[in-house]
Amino acid sequence: MSEAIFLEDLFPGRRFTAGSVMVDAEEVKRFAALYDPQPFHMDEEAGAAHPLFGRLAASGWHTAGMTMRMVVQAIGGISGGIVGGGGEIQWTKPVYPGDTLRVEIEVLEVAPSRSRPDRGSALMRNTTFNQHDEPVQIFTVRVVVPKRPV
Amino acid sequence: MSEAIFLEDLFPGRRFTAGSVMVDAEEVKRFAALYDPQPFHMDEEAGAAHPLFGRLAASGWHTAGMTMRMVVQAIGGISGGIVGGGGEIQWTKPVYPGDTLRVEIEVLEVAPSRSRPDRGSALMRNTTFNQHDEPVQIFTVRVVVPKRPV
Repeated sequence: MSEAIFLEDLFPGRRFTAGSVMVDAEEVKRFAALYDPQPFHMDEEAGAAHPLFGRLAASGWHTAGMTMRMVVQAIGGISGGIVGGGGEIQWTKPVYPGDTLRVEIEVLEVAPSRSRPDRGSALMRNTTFNQHDEPVQIFTVRVVVPKRPV
Repeated sequence: MSEAIFLEDLFPGRRFTAGSVMVDAEEVKRFAALYDPQPFHMDEEAGAAHPLFGRLAASGWHTAGMTMRMVVQAIGGISGGIVGGGGEIQWTKPVYPGDTLRVEIEVLEVAPSRSRPDRGSALMRNTTFNQHDEPVQIFTVRVVVPKRPV
């Protein structure tokens, strides 16, 4: 986990790089069995028969989870943790076993809280890339970030 | 899994109910260790010390996964599967071990494809509620849905 990060450390345009992780076929199937039990996420033949995927493909929620793990490893030092109230998620390409994923985190906006002088919020865009430098997921999220204690 | 669902079966205002599932403390920790390794998702004491959570709390991505499983069980009969290109996710309340979750799926819009006569898309809002009827997650997503074969 990284050094402690406070609101003062963030500014629009600041970037962090996270990852990488290799997507594992058995983990793809195990995740899907628990959280997205559709045949094309659990079985090679069903993936091959799917018109969009053409192969066993990871659940988008699994991609989101792998991304979050990398984000925590990169910027988990945000005091109080990375707790987002929500955001916009896009899955732009399928993710396949054998892919290697990494995340680029970019700070888009930073704003102090109007009501709470000890904190603020940052709007961040976490883009997950595969080994071909293709974005496979884009998640834009607003996160609460404490100010540095005086 | 439900009966096959085609575009003709969907209309704005149609609802489906999915669930329920009881949130399990060991699963909360196991999910977090793999996909959101922050202390307040893995350890009771760290959860208790967190100002927002006050108890061990599930990762939002875990809530998303539990929700997806319930959605697949309810409307997994959509031909070709439930494959969303993305959407807007909001986590509106913490989710705790012992909570019982259910999902209400509402069709907001239905539109035929302009370029592909065999399909269309549906905008759906999947709201996850806890046992107090409080929304804990709202996910709005556009899904491709085939038309009924002629």
